[in-house]
Order: sequence, then C-alpha cells, then structure tokens
Amino acid sequence: MAEHNVTMEHTLKVLLTEKKYSTLKDILVTMNPADVAAVFDEIGDESIPRLFRLLPKELAAETFVEMEPEVQELLIRSFSDAELHDVIEELYVDDAVDLVEEMPANVVKRILAQADPQMRREINDLLRYPENSAGSIMTTEYVSLRPTMTVGEAITRIRRTGVDKETIYTCYVTQERRLLGTVSVKDLLLAGDDDTPVTEIMDEHVIFVNTLDDQEKVAQMLSKYNFLALPVVDNDRLLVGIITFDDAMDVLEEETTEDIEKMAGMLPSDKAYFRSSAWDLFKHRIPWLALLMISATFTGMIITGFESALAAQVVLTAFIPMLMDTGGNSGSQASVSVIRSLSLGELEFADMPRVVWKEIQTAVLCGLALSILCFCKIMLIDRMLFGNTDITVMTAFVVCFTMAMTVLVAKIIGCSLPMCAQRLGFDPAVMASPFITTIVDALSLLVYFGIASALLFH
Amino acid sequence: MAEHNVTMEHTLKVLLTEKKYSTLKDILVTMNPADVAAVFDEIGDESIPRLFRLLPKELAAETFVEMEPEVQELLIRSFSDAELHDVIEELYVDDAVDLVEEMPANVVKRILAQADPQMRREINDLLRYPENSAGSIMTTEYVSLRPTMTVGEAITRIRRTGVDKETIYTCYVTQERRLLGTVSVKDLLLAGDDDTPVTEIMDEHVIFVNTLDDQEKVAQMLSKYNFLALPVVDNDRLLVGIITFDDAMDVLEEETTEDIEKMAGMLPSDKAYFRSSAWDLFKHRIPWLALLMISATFTGMIITGFESALAAQVVLTAFIPMLMDTGGNSGSQASVSVIRSLSLGELEFADMPRVVWKEIQTAVLCGLALSILCFCKIMLIDRMLFGNTDITVMTAFVVCFTMAMTVLVAKIIGCSLPMCAQRLGFDPAVMASPFITTIVDALSLLVYFGIASALLFH
Repeated sequence: MAEHNVTMEHTLKVLLTEKKYSTLKDILVTMNPADVAAVFDEIGDESIPRLFRLLPKELAAETFVEMEPEVQELLIRSFSDAELHDVIEELYVDDAVDLVEEMPANVVKRILAQADPQMRREINDLLRYPENSAGSIMTTEYVSLRPTMTVGEAITRIRRTGVDKETIYTCYVTQERRLLGTVSVKDLLLAGDDDTPVTEIMDEHVIFVNTLDDQEKVAQMLSKYNFLALPVVDNDRLLVGIITFDDAMDVLEEETTEDIEKMAGMLPSDKAYFRSSAWDLFKHRIPWLALLMISATFTGMIITGFESALAAQVVLTAFIPMLMDTGGNSGSQASVSVIRSLSLGELEFADMPRVVWKEIQTAVLCGLALSILCFCKIMLIDRMLFGNTDITVMTAFVVCFTMAMTVLVAKIIGCSLPMCAQRLGFDPAVMASPFITTIVDALSLLVYFGIASALLFH
Repeated sequence: MAEHNVTMEHTLKVLLTEKKYSTLKDILVTMNPADVAAVFDEIGDESIPRLFRLLPKELAAETFVEMEPEVQELLIRSFSDAELHDVIEELYVDDAVDLVEEMPANVVKRILAQADPQMRREINDLLRYPENSAGSIMTTEYVSLRPTMTVGEAITRIRRTGVDKETIYTCYVTQERRLLGTVSVKDLLLAGDDDTPVTEIMDEHVIFVNTLDDQEKVAQMLSKYNFLALPVVDNDRLLVGIITFDDAMDVLEEETTEDIEKMAGMLPSDKAYFRSSAWDLFKHRIPWLALLMISATFTGMIITGFESALAAQVVLTAFIPMLMDTGGNSGSQASVSVIRSLSLGELEFADMPRVVWKEIQTAVLCGLALSILCFCKIMLIDRMLFGNTDITVMTAFVVCFTMAMTVLVAKIIGCSLPMCAQRLGFDPAVMASPFITTIVDALSLLVYFGIASALLFH
C-alpha cells in the first residue's frame, strides 16, 4: 500500500504543479478516505489547503478524520469560518471529540464556535469522561427505537434518521432512555412480517458497558463477542452512547503498541515512530535506561564483594555474560507469555499457583537441557578446541549448576512479578524483560559466586 | 468477565448435579454464545455432552464455534450422526474450515461425511488455500446482487437469502462473478426511491484482496479502512469470497501474539498459555535459549582474551553487567519500536536512512545523559559511599565512554537489523531483544577492553 501512495503522491504533485485541478479531482474521488489522507500526510505543507478544497464535501470530512493531527491543525488554520463549519457539521461526535482533544486551545475555541449548539453540548459532555474510559470513545449518534414500534415502523425510522448515525446495523430499543433490548437490521429485514412488534424479535439479554469502564476492556469485549457495536450506559443504567467495532480495533492496536513499548522498557507514546522526533524518543527511553543502569549498582557490588576470589579464578569471569543473558532470556520468555495472556484476559491472579507450577516444570526441562548442552560446550569448545586449561570439570559443573538454578529463578520471577503487579493495580507490562533481567542478573551472580565459593575456593 | 464465569460455572454445575435441566436451559438461553462456550471450557468433561444437548439448535451451533478445539473434539465424538449433521448444517463455511483444520483425521472424516454435498465441496475448496492466506480465512457466503436490479429488488433478495449469509450489510454487485461494485444495506435503505438501479448507488472503486494475500495484510486493511468486510478475488479477478471484520480482529490478535512471542525469543505457538503443557512451553522456548547460550561463546572468548589485563584490574569486571544490560536495553528499545512500526505498515525498507539517522540522534542524547549520570554514580556511590578506592577518575571515564559507545552501537544495530531482516524476507520480529543483546554484548566488551587497554594498561 505504501508504494502505491508514493507513486500516487508523485502523480498528484505533478498535477498540482501543473494546476490540472479537474484531473486531480477525478482521481481523488475514486480513492478511499484513508488513502486520500495518506496522500495529505506525505505531500508538502503548502499544497495541503489547495488539494483539500478540491474534495467534495462528504469525502472532505471523511478524509479529514483520517489525517494526522499536524495536518488537521494546518488545515483548520487555513480554513475560513464557513469552511470549518462545513467540515465540523459532517463529523460524527466521537470524531469531533478526538479532534478537540488533539488540538491546541485556540484552535479548539474556533472549532467549538463553529459547531452547532447541540453538537457543542455533546462534545462538551463527552470531553468530561476520563481519558481511556468507554465514555471518552463512545458516540451519541445511534438509532433508538420505541418498544411500541412494529418492524415496519422501525425500518421507516431507520430510513428517515439513519443518515446521521454512526451505525444503523444495531438499533437500541429504549423507554425513557432505559435500554430494553437490541435489534439488528438483519433481524428487522429478515423478520418476514412488517407488523411484528420489535419487542418480539429484539434481544433482551443485552451486553453493555459503563461509561467509566476501561476502553481496553470494552474493545476486548467487542472482539470476544464479534459485535458491531456495544451500548454504553451511565451509573443509572440509562443508555448514553455506543462504541463501534472500528473504534475498538483502533483501541486494541494502540493498547498493544503501548504494551509492547512498556515491555521493552519505554514509556508509552501516542505518536507513531515516524512522527516522533529524536527528542521525543529520548524522553520516552531515558527514564528506564537510567533507572536500570543505576540498579545495576547491585550487580556491581556483588562482583566487587567477590573480587579477591575472582582475581584468583579469572576464568569464572568469562562465563558471566552467558549466565546473565540466559537468565535474562529465560525470565523474559516467562514474563512476556504471562503479560500477553493477562492482557488478553486469559489469565488472572487466582491462576498464579498453576502458572508458577507450569513455569517450574518448564524451567526444570529448560535448565536440564541447557546445563547438559553447556557442559558439552565448555568441555569441547572452550577447553579442548581453544585449549583453555584453566577450565576444569569442576568449573564446568559450577557454571552448569548455576545455569540451571538461574533458569529456575528467572522463570519463577518472570511469571509471578507481572501477576503480582496487576494484583496491586500496576500495569503488568512494565514488569517485563528489562526489569526482570536486572533482578535475575543480581540473583544469578549471587548463586554463581555462592556455588563457586563452596566448591572452588577452599 | 472471568469472575462472572467462575460463579456461573459453579451454579450450573450444581444445577446439573441436581438434574434441574429446565432451569439450566432457561439460564443458558439468556447468555451470549461466547460466554456459554467459556462455561463449557471450564466445566468437567463428563458434563459437556449433557449440557450441550440442552441448547436450542442455533445457540448450540453458535456456541460450538466459540469452544476450544479439545471441547469440540470431545463433543463430536459423543455426537450421533444426526446430531453432528445438525451442528454442521448451522455452521458458516469458514467456521467449518477452521474446525476441520483443528480436528484429527478420523474426526474430519465424520464431519465431511455429515456435511451436505455443497458444503463439503466448499470446505474442500477452501482447504486448498495456503495457511495464513486470505483464501484460508474467507467465507463464500456473501450476498451478491445483479447489476440489473433496483434498490427494491435488492432489498427483497437480501430478505430472501440473507439468513444464511455471514454478513448482509455489504452486498456485492457481480456479473458472471466479476465484481462491479459494492453497496451497503445502509445505502439501500437510505436510497429513498426503491426504483433506483443499484448500479447508480453502488461504489465502483472497490478495494479488494487476492486469495493468496497474507491474512495479516488483509486484517490491517480492514482495520485501516474501517470496513465490515473485504471482498476476495482470485487470479482472474473473479469474486470468490469475503473476509469479515470479526475474523480480521482475531487475525490481528493472533499475529500480534506471535510477534510478541518472537520478540521475546520464543517460537510462536497457536495454543493459549493456559492450554500449553510444560512440554509445549519447553519446545517453544529451548531453541532460542540454546542458540543464544552457544553464541555467548564469543563474549566468553573476548573476556578470556583480556584475562591477564582483567586479573590486574579486577575492578573493571564489576561494570560488565551494567554495560551489557544498558546496551541490551538500548538495543531492544530501538528494535522493538522499529518492529512494531514495520508490522503496522508505518515503516518500510526505503525509510532506513531516516530511521538510522533518528536513532543516532537519540543514541547521542541517551548516551550523553547516561554517561554523565554514570560518572556521578561511580564517583559518588561506588567510590565515595562504598569507599572503593580501586576506582580512579580514569576508570570512571573508561566505563562512561564505553557506555556512550555501546548505546550508539546498540541503537544502530537495533533499528537496522529488523529492517534488513524484512528486506531479506525474514520476519523482523526474530531480530528483537535476545538476538540483538548477544551481538551488542560482544561489541560492548570489545569496546570496553579496547578503550581500557589504550588508557589503563600501559
């Protein structure tokens, strides 16, 4: 897709320079709004307003929603009040809210001034919900039906009011805003008899979420139940909005990226990599780097404590990187598996004993296999091939035994820390590889020198 | 949700033991198929067939689709031929294909024997597409309209044939299976005039995929364009099926889990953590652990090469873990950012110079900040607080300079390796932290001892 846009971008730029506006327009109207927006993101700033004015009203608004915030801001600043009014009028309320959240204060003021009074009120209502809550991503534009309606009346109502609704495919039967049931357009169309009351075909066992529920939970429910939309109710159980599957997909993508960033020891960023400056990247990466560097003081202290023993047996130093890396890798395998299962809702805190037991069994298998392999490697490669005669069978045994213990400790810590973190209300993703590596490093060195002291230094 | 099921499971078990079948049925019919399936996954094996027979036909089939493969297999083995026939008849073709792919050969034989001839042919057709291709996840049950139809005729056709279609909301206008355009039920309902030809309101600029396209690419397109469904064409550009958003959401979840597993040095598994035995986990984790352990031979060799120098300056050993961990963390931050951007389609190989330049700038900022912090830490904590007088200003300088160089090398390798891997047709996710850590370890030790030799050992 990206290559396609690069070429398209070039063609459009040439046409723009040559002022072939009608050809330009003919091309743009054949394109999907997401693709048109990608063109705007790539094309030079000075061409953006000119190109945008070529789009027909509806495509213009749909494209506007898909653009990067920087391009949106540039456009709004170039709009006359009338142009701004036209774009805002075409937006769904949830998209307008997203826009307002991204823009600087003076732009927001202009947006709200150009919105119709009702939309302004709805935007302000939605802005009041906490960030990342169901309320903050829902839209208030859904089709509601009265329980007294027949199938035929319902279809008529949809045909009359549907144009401004974000989805018409799931309709909500309400009485004084109390949610009685849902009915899909499929059910209505396939009902057979137009005189059937909607209450007869509606589904009364409605699954809904609260305005304050976490957006990730909501997105996962939509994915689990394969729903097109999920109704959102307030604390009095009154219907206030719906969340549609496309917003849920965006939330899942965003939350997964955040999890991955946290697992790699970064502060989550809401900007795409490409739009982050080196300074942005620095700010998101330095805190964990610095913290983990400082915490490596412990490993340094452990080594210093055994300095005199090490000076006598420098050969032991050569195995420190291997032991530390294997421990780190083992721990992050366990922690990442558990973190992903937690975020998919497959695991919860009560499962911890079963998880720890499974990791202990896996650790014994991995530890055994690695120790045997490591013993062969040390004796065959390090001792025989490279002729390092400082390495005795006892040294190899100490290294391999430490290896097995390190794997065990790493797996147990790796699986239990994320679960404990979640239980304590922290995000389990921050308990991933970098953090666990630091702990496992220190423990594996303690085990190493402990065993070495007992067996090698008399 | 999980807590809810635990309680529900208990209630249902009690009711089952007490043989209160009508109460059981009353409860089950109020539940969503995904939740009913979760009950089956948790309840004891012996109760499964009895509980399943309580479900009404449609709910039974919908629940069956949502179950874990183990439960499905157990049920099929307990079914009479007539019961199996009833369940299969209610399945959509793509779900039937998923089932056939999961079951052992003798169960598959029974399933195909009980399927209607047409369904059997369609299942066999779909099974021929390569794994993870668009063809392998599509369904053939879509609504097709003829170009000669009016809006009214189209609605009538949907009402007549829609019940067996996976989605009715996007309809496909075809002529001799050639895809002319798409029209949504929303467009049809809001068209106003039933005599309008569908060709007048259909969208001719159809975005479609090929049967052999990768399922991840397809899922990302659905997410990007916010489509409910995407048409799939064969090499002759004839329409052969559609992929719906719910399948795309599953694909995205699955592919993300695979990416995360690869990034943490595991072979991807298609089993949930909870359903994997310790032996499964071992098999997926040991290859990378073993490979990375063996490759640590290089770091060992580097240390051995400088053994005599180290024996003279053992204090240098104490900083090895800190340098290695900081390098590993810096590298994995860069690699994970790039891998995620690649898999979201935000980056491609051509962007490499820009990415490397951005990472160099970030590395200079991070390296500078960390070196200064590290210098203060060494002089204040290690030297003054712990009174380690072996540490000179020169030692601190060597460590800090190595730190800055390591961060730089780690960031450059971390961002470029995944992009090169993708270019060469490998999965960039395997180029993540564990692999990069091993390379960075070796390089940082070389830098460390190189600088130390030049400045400390004369």
